[in-house]
Amino acid sequence: MAGRGSSSPCAACKLLRRRCAKDCIFAAYFPSDQPHKFYIVHKVFGASNVNKMLQELPVHHRADAASSLVYEASARMKDPVYGCVGAISYLQNQVSQLQMQLAMAQAEILCVQMQQECSSSSLPSNQQETHESKFLIDFS
Amino acid sequence: MAGRGSSSPCAACKLLRRRCAKDCIFAAYFPSDQPHKFYIVHKVFGASNVNKMLQELPVHHRADAASSLVYEASARMKDPVYGCVGAISYLQNQVSQLQMQLAMAQAEILCVQMQQECSSSSLPSNQQETHESKFLIDFS
Repeated sequence: MAGRGSSSPCAACKLLRRRCAKDCIFAAYFPSDQPHKFYIVHKVFGASNVNKMLQELPVHHRADAASSLVYEASARMKDPVYGCVGAISYLQNQVSQLQMQLAMAQAEILCVQMQQECSSSSLPSNQQETHESKFLIDFS
Repeated sequence: MAGRGSSSPCAACKLLRRRCAKDCIFAAYFPSDQPHKFYIVHKVFGASNVNKMLQELPVHHRADAASSLVYEASARMKDPVYGCVGAISYLQNQVSQLQMQLAMAQAEILCVQMQQECSSSSLPSNQQETHESKFLIDFS
């Protein structure tokens, strides 16, 4: 954690060229040894907005909020058109594709099982016992 | 589209209480009849940052960028701790679960097919033809 009110200001106060007060809201989440984190949130959201967003949250949520703001700002720097929304869109497509593949695999399982049932019902009685033996893995 | 330089300013200029110039960068993406869109991007990113982000992009990318900024700001308003990152995390979990379910379904298909092969090889020759007939759907 950055020195608060000491000679080593946090990354935010260093970038904003101001004194890092003892109760600096940024100091806990933007330490002086990771200056790029505050640089990107400042560039995307602005220091004043980040300050407000953190102030409006209970203290125990601020670390997660600061991390998610850094993640979001980083995504916007990498993809200035879509930012995080590009990742959401990509993941939504991936979910749709996987759901389709899963539905097809489940249909295939049903088909194979139906084929087994048809085959076993056409077998002579001395063959049916072997054919109907359970071989499926129970994934439940 | 909001009137530019007319008596009907765009949503941004209305909120910022300024004259909506003919070349206002916000007017095309923040029309006066959807004031909440600019309100939320202003609250989360700040008008000045939104202006800069749009200016830095080629004109043909600005509509998508404005939409993604509105989406991102809306997510941050609904979830002030995680914003869009909450949706990304949820989708990543969904992808992992679906990948696992798909792998299990594919393993089950292999098992059933192996069972079929074992059963058919133990059948008398007159039963094998029926049992080996193709019944699987070709999903390729």
